[in-house]
Amino acid sequence: MAEGMVAKGLQDVVVDDTWICKIIGDQGKLYYYGYSIHDLAEHCTYEEVVFLLLKGKLPNRAELDQITRELKEARGLPYGVRDVIKSAPKGSIPMDVLRTAASALALTDPKPGDDSPEGRYRKAIRMVALFPEIVAADYRFRRGEEPVASNPKLNHAANFLYLLHGKEPGADAARTMDVALVLHAEHDFNASTFTARVIAATMSDMYSAVTGAIGALKGPLHGGANEGVIKTLLEIGEPANIKPWLAEKFKDKNFRLMGFGHRVYKTLDPRAIVLKKYSEKTGRERGTTKWFEMSNEIEQIMKTREKPLYPNVDFYSASTYFMMGLPPEIYTPIFAVARVVGWCAHVIEQQTHNKLIRPAADYHGEIDKPLPPIDKR
Amino acid sequence: MAEGMVAKGLQDVVVDDTWICKIIGDQGKLYYYGYSIHDLAEHCTYEEVVFLLLKGKLPNRAELDQITRELKEARGLPYGVRDVIKSAPKGSIPMDVLRTAASALALTDPKPGDDSPEGRYRKAIRMVALFPEIVAADYRFRRGEEPVASNPKLNHAANFLYLLHGKEPGADAARTMDVALVLHAEHDFNASTFTARVIAATMSDMYSAVTGAIGALKGPLHGGANEGVIKTLLEIGEPANIKPWLAEKFKDKNFRLMGFGHRVYKTLDPRAIVLKKYSEKTGRERGTTKWFEMSNEIEQIMKTREKPLYPNVDFYSASTYFMMGLPPEIYTPIFAVARVVGWCAHVIEQQTHNKLIRPAADYHGEIDKPLPPIDKR
Repeated sequence: MAEGMVAKGLQDVVVDDTWICKIIGDQGKLYYYGYSIHDLAEHCTYEEVVFLLLKGKLPNRAELDQITRELKEARGLPYGVRDVIKSAPKGSIPMDVLRTAASALALTDPKPGDDSPEGRYRKAIRMVALFPEIVAADYRFRRGEEPVASNPKLNHAANFLYLLHGKEPGADAARTMDVALVLHAEHDFNASTFTARVIAATMSDMYSAVTGAIGALKGPLHGGANEGVIKTLLEIGEPANIKPWLAEKFKDKNFRLMGFGHRVYKTLDPRAIVLKKYSEKTGRERGTTKWFEMSNEIEQIMKTREKPLYPNVDFYSASTYFMMGLPPEIYTPIFAVARVVGWCAHVIEQQTHNKLIRPAADYHGEIDKPLPPIDKR
Repeated sequence: MAEGMVAKGLQDVVVDDTWICKIIGDQGKLYYYGYSIHDLAEHCTYEEVVFLLLKGKLPNRAELDQITRELKEARGLPYGVRDVIKSAPKGSIPMDVLRTAASALALTDPKPGDDSPEGRYRKAIRMVALFPEIVAADYRFRRGEEPVASNPKLNHAANFLYLLHGKEPGADAARTMDVALVLHAEHDFNASTFTARVIAATMSDMYSAVTGAIGALKGPLHGGANEGVIKTLLEIGEPANIKPWLAEKFKDKNFRLMGFGHRVYKTLDPRAIVLKKYSEKTGRERGTTKWFEMSNEIEQIMKTREKPLYPNVDFYSASTYFMMGLPPEIYTPIFAVARVVGWCAHVIEQQTHNKLIRPAADYHGEIDKPLPPIDKR
C-alpha cells in the first residue's frame, strides 16, 4: 500500500502475525494450525478443535479426556445470567440477548480480573461451555418453556441439540451439528475476530473482547447472513420460482444474494463443500430434499452468471439447520456458539504478542474554525 | 507502508476518511468538526458538543433547546436494565456492569432493529442520556443506596453529579464535570472508537458497536489508565516520596508511568492543559492542592528525563475527580459517559460510507499437515 493511501476496509492489509489459521482464498483452502478443514471436519469432534485452537496442537487421548471434563464441569448457567435471559422481552433480537448474557458472564466469574494465561484459558473454557446453554435458554424461554439442564453423557454438539429440544438427538443430527461447529470454529482475521483483537489489544479482558465480537457477528455483512439465506429460500418457496425470483431481484444492480461471495475466497468456500454434503444428507434423513435441491440450483445459476459467485459457509448451513428443525432466528447465535473458541484463541494470541491497535484517519474538514457565540449561529 | 509489511497495531495506517475529528499530534492540537478543543472547553456545554458530534454543526439556541429536551426525555433507567445493575455482585468490575447494562439497553429499546438514520440518532440520544444513570445506579447500589431519579432542572453534567451524590452539585463542580465531559467526548480513531467502527462496518447495530467500545475502553492501555493514575498518586502518598518512588520504579526499563505518553500526541495533550487548570482550581475550592501539586511535580520530572514524556488526558483528570470526591473505580466509567457520543458519531459516519473492515494476517505455521488418528498423537 502506497504512502498516503486510505486502506478503507483494510482489504488485504496485513495487520499482524498469526499462527492460528490460514486461508488460501484463490484455492479455497482453510487450515486450523496447519490441518485442512476437510480433515478436521471428517475426523475430529468440536472438543478436539477447541483443544487445537486453545493449545496449538491436537489432543492425545488423555488431553481430550481432560478438556472434555473441563468443558462439562464448566456447564451450568449462573442464576444471574439466566435471569438476564429470562427477563428479555419476547420480541428481543436473539443476538442482543446472547451479547448481554455473554457480558454478564463476567459478573458471575469468581475471578473476573484474572487475565493471566491460566485465567484466560479458564474464561475461554467457561464461555465455550456456556454459550450453548445461553442460546438454548433464550430459545426455550421464548417458547414458554423452561431451560433443561445439560446432559453429562453428551458431548458438546449433542448436548447443544439436547438443550434446545429437551431430548437426546439422533446420532446423525448430533454429528451434523458437530461438523457445523468444527467448520465455524475459526476463520482468521474476519470482522468479529478482528473486533476481539482490537479490544484485547487494550489489554482489556476476554469477556469484553468476546462480547464485542458477538456484536460484530450480528451484522448482516458477517454472521447475520445465514439468517438471510433461509429467509431467501423460504421467500422463493418452490423450485419453479427460483429463476423468475432471481431475474426480478437482479434488475437491481446493487442486489446481493445472501450466502454468496466472500472477501477472502475467490472460489468455492471449502466449508460450503462440506456443508453441502450435510445439507443433502440431512434432507434424505428427514425425507425432504427440496431445500437442498433448491440451494443447489441457485448455486449452479450463480456460478454461470457474468460475474460468477460461489456459495460461502452461510449458504448450506441455512438449509441444513432448517431441515434439522432449527428456527432461523438462532442461526447466527449457533455461529457464535461455534466461533467463540476462535475468538478466545485470537485474544490469547493478541495479548501474548501485544501492541495497541490504534489506526489513523484522513480528515477532510477545516481546522481552526472560529467558534461563534450561540446567538450568532 | 511497503507491500508485504505487517502493520502491527496499525500505527499511522490511514484506515478511512473522516469528517468528525482531527488531531495534530506533533502540535498538540485537537478539533471536533474543526473547532479547537480549547474553544469548546471554554465556551460550550456537553449538550452543545453532543449536537456538534451527532449533527456536524454547532446548535443555535432553538436546536440546543431541542436536543436538551430530547436528552431529558430519554432519561429514566428501564427496570430491566436497573435489575441487571442491581443484581451484579458487589465485587463486580464497574466497567463490566456498564458494558452489560449498555448491551441490555437494546433489550428495552422499543425498536431495537431500527437502524435507519433516525433510529441511529434516537439510539445515540438514548445512550448518551442513560449512561450517567447506569454508572450512578451501579455506584449507589454498591454503597447500599438506592439510585435517585434524574433532576429535570439540571443539565447533563450537573445531573450526573446529582445522580452520583444524591444532591445538587455546586456550580464549580458542575462546570468542572461539564468541561471534563467535553474534553473526553471524542478523539478520532482511538482503540474504542475503532472497535465501534469495526462492529458497525458489519452493519450491526448501535448498541452492539457501543458495547464493544466499552470493552475496549476498559483496557489499561486505553481508558483504564485514569484509574491507574490515581492509584499511583495514592501509592506515592506524599510530595517527599515522589523522587525516591520514581527512581525505584525506573530501575525497571519497562516501567511505564500511567498517564504519560500517547500514541498520537508527541507533545502536551491539549486536554491535559485544560484539565491541569481544573485540577488546580478544584484543589483550591476544596482547600487541598496537594494532589495537584504532586501531579505537577511529576509532570516536571517526566519532561526532563532523557526521553521526555508529557501528561495525557488521564493524568490531570485523576486528581480532579479525586478532589471532587469521586472514587477511582468510576473514573473509566466517567470516561465512557463522555465518550459514548463520539462512538455514536463514528458509528453513524461508518455506516453512511460503509465498507466491511476485514484485514489480512501473516501466517507463520505449516500447511497441509497430515492429521494423525488420536492414538498416534
